[in-house]
Amino acid sequence: MMRNRLLFPFILIFSLLGGTIKGQNDADARFLKDIHDQILSDGECYDWLYHLSENIGGRLAGSPASDLAIQYTYDVLNTIADTVYLQECKVPYWERGKPESVKIIYPDQKPLEIGGLALGNSVGSGSEGVTGKIIEVQSLDEVRALGREHIEGNIVFYNRPMDPTKIRTFHAYGGAGDQRVNGPAVAAEYGAIATVVRSVTLQLDDAPHTGVTLYKEGVPKIPAVAISTIDANHLSEVLSDDSRVQLRIETHSQMVEAARTSYNVIAEIKGSTHPEEIILVGGHLDSWDVGGGAHDDGAGCVHSMQVLASLKALNYKPKRTLRCVLFMNEENGLGGGLAYADASNNANEYHMAAIESDAGGFSPNGFSCDGEEAVFANFYRQITTWEPLLNPYMLQLNTGGSGADISPLKSQGGILIGLRPDSQRYFDFHHTAKDRIEAVHKRELELGGAAMTSLVYLLDKYGLKK
Amino acid sequence: MMRNRLLFPFILIFSLLGGTIKGQNDADARFLKDIHDQILSDGECYDWLYHLSENIGGRLAGSPASDLAIQYTYDVLNTIADTVYLQECKVPYWERGKPESVKIIYPDQKPLEIGGLALGNSVGSGSEGVTGKIIEVQSLDEVRALGREHIEGNIVFYNRPMDPTKIRTFHAYGGAGDQRVNGPAVAAEYGAIATVVRSVTLQLDDAPHTGVTLYKEGVPKIPAVAISTIDANHLSEVLSDDSRVQLRIETHSQMVEAARTSYNVIAEIKGSTHPEEIILVGGHLDSWDVGGGAHDDGAGCVHSMQVLASLKALNYKPKRTLRCVLFMNEENGLGGGLAYADASNNANEYHMAAIESDAGGFSPNGFSCDGEEAVFANFYRQITTWEPLLNPYMLQLNTGGSGADISPLKSQGGILIGLRPDSQRYFDFHHTAKDRIEAVHKRELELGGAAMTSLVYLLDKYGLKK
Repeated sequence: MMRNRLLFPFILIFSLLGGTIKGQNDADARFLKDIHDQILSDGECYDWLYHLSENIGGRLAGSPASDLAIQYTYDVLNTIADTVYLQECKVPYWERGKPESVKIIYPDQKPLEIGGLALGNSVGSGSEGVTGKIIEVQSLDEVRALGREHIEGNIVFYNRPMDPTKIRTFHAYGGAGDQRVNGPAVAAEYGAIATVVRSVTLQLDDAPHTGVTLYKEGVPKIPAVAISTIDANHLSEVLSDDSRVQLRIETHSQMVEAARTSYNVIAEIKGSTHPEEIILVGGHLDSWDVGGGAHDDGAGCVHSMQVLASLKALNYKPKRTLRCVLFMNEENGLGGGLAYADASNNANEYHMAAIESDAGGFSPNGFSCDGEEAVFANFYRQITTWEPLLNPYMLQLNTGGSGADISPLKSQGGILIGLRPDSQRYFDFHHTAKDRIEAVHKRELELGGAAMTSLVYLLDKYGLKK
Repeated sequence: MMRNRLLFPFILIFSLLGGTIKGQNDADARFLKDIHDQILSDGECYDWLYHLSENIGGRLAGSPASDLAIQYTYDVLNTIADTVYLQECKVPYWERGKPESVKIIYPDQKPLEIGGLALGNSVGSGSEGVTGKIIEVQSLDEVRALGREHIEGNIVFYNRPMDPTKIRTFHAYGGAGDQRVNGPAVAAEYGAIATVVRSVTLQLDDAPHTGVTLYKEGVPKIPAVAISTIDANHLSEVLSDDSRVQLRIETHSQMVEAARTSYNVIAEIKGSTHPEEIILVGGHLDSWDVGGGAHDDGAGCVHSMQVLASLKALNYKPKRTLRCVLFMNEENGLGGGLAYADASNNANEYHMAAIESDAGGFSPNGFSCDGEEAVFANFYRQITTWEPLLNPYMLQLNTGGSGADISPLKSQGGILIGLRPDSQRYFDFHHTAKDRIEAVHKRELELGGAAMTSLVYLLDKYGLKK
């Protein structure tokens, strides 16, 4: 009874709204269906991704493979957009060098070779390697608490697993990733000679996961490797049996060049009536050197390219300026994202909306939205009025982070949006040799592109009113 | 401006509701989080599924493997529920027999052996095989239009692909499946000597997909096989080059026994205050003989078992009667589902809600709800008030079909619900040798179980008021 009374005003309001917006909504629903039909029938994104991840492969910023990726995507976008150009940026060029060797050294039996991958940007040990006692810890704070007395001269082994109870695995990544990103620098502050990090994944398997580490000014740079979760569990067991066990780490990685010239690839379709309002779609073109960067972030690049290609195939003429940006160097420096934001700010541009896809090529669950406090609530309210159009595609809108490359655009006062694909399998492949095309499902990839295209269409058609 | 005025009453209503239901909602949100934590940390469903699909394997109704599956799940459920029992049902027992042979016979070159799987319940050709000219069609209606003149004495080849533009692949399955289910009977009506069906999948690959076919009373039973989509495309090309090409089909399948005794496995936890209101969770325990029936429908069985196990682990005492039913013979007869409904109706039971999981073990997208017209709108409205609790888990509620096994319960006037996992990959594996444990992702499976447990908790706590 009470429910019915309270529901009545809802029904009334829906009826009032119904007449005015129904015709509009029907046309929008039809166009969203057209977008999905086009991409699920004739989308090219999977073929592009195949080329990027398999023919070109891992493409770390500054590498010859990254140059091939720039050329390839430039050429493809040239067949789609009005204007395509390269935007210069400076990127660090780091090389893994000869394969790593990580060995468990027992007091009284033969050493055991386990897999390992040097962390991105880390220094190599050289052929002599680094050998030392192992201090296993669960956190950076534990290193600080142990202090120089226990850490100096030893190898710090960070072994805190990801939290399996987080529904979105990115939250669990956020909770464990500091060990890799900042762990080596913190260990070095207390005199550690090297760092080993448990791979940041929820899988128990034998694949080491690389990723960037950040050294600290004025603190020695020490070798740093990731080992697989199986090896991390094994090493922990071995240590609890016999604390005399040591590790020998040999890496040949080096920062070859601190600031090499590279490029963002930018393609644009000029808006017909509001060209000064930019809607950006983007991903990052660089990837780690291992694997093919299929999910991270070839998927985001081809999603973004698909947006322009699909709207063109549907003969849609945007009112606002659509820009597809393939950023360079997200993985180990953000050189491309920062250069893009600088150039854009200097030109007094206004990104009304920027959508980044950098969370994989799995079935899309929706979008996560962010923006400056002064404008965000108003913009977000406008966007959420489109939820009834997005829900049939299982797309939800939420507040939350967007993406690393577009975050520097926040000060322009537009809305920043991240595509949110299903995240359950993402960290099975992330930063490993397994991030190849076979880990990507064609339809799931296409649906991600269709989700982005749908939102771009709505943003372009209706704009966001301040 | 207009927007703000229209939004005002919404905000008012939310504020009014806020005070009364907030405390309750917080407790519910916490319990849903407890459920997810429990299953993502300590859920047993993946291990149970491993045993069902790998140690027991394909378990067609009436087969020795199905008996092992009955025994195994009975034993597991006995450690969880108050009462566990077997419910007798009659099932057809069909056997594939010796492997199929399907050959393309060219007028002037060597025959080409292609893969094939006899359709479930289909008769065998025996060792002599069936050889004939091929009539390729896109639909049952095309067979009817061609008529006896063109069909008689020939082999009908149904080759209409699934529609890739359907977002939920089950809709595309619904649009193509008639070729397999009814195609052989319709072809036989017009004198065909055998039927070949394009596998019902969106993948272009070399796996034939089996599945049930239904013969028609008074019409000859003819051999019927599925061939892979790659072979279907190839055969179609070959035919367009040279219509003299023939097929030879050899199958050794047979209906061994029309009505063998088998069992549903039923586990129950009696409700403390409303034991007469039953909440059912279920899947089907039988599977096709090829593969391990991991997604179809081992996943649904272990999802349902997980519901009871998790609520027990959390020490939750249900008010209503929770019943986990593992149905026998969904794939080729529905003997279990019909026997269950008969027994339940005879006992004047009331299933306030029944939830079936028979759409795979992928990340859950939500639930699809159905019911008798007289009660449905009211029940559905009550259920949708829980959406704010389900949305954080990316779960949406929709209207639509529930599941084959529970559909016969509709007349009891409760709500029927189907778990809706992400469907993009489902038909890559469906009814093939590839439907094994490696196609199932542990976390995705667990999230499906957690979604069902969450909904069961809400249904049990609040009930559905008529």
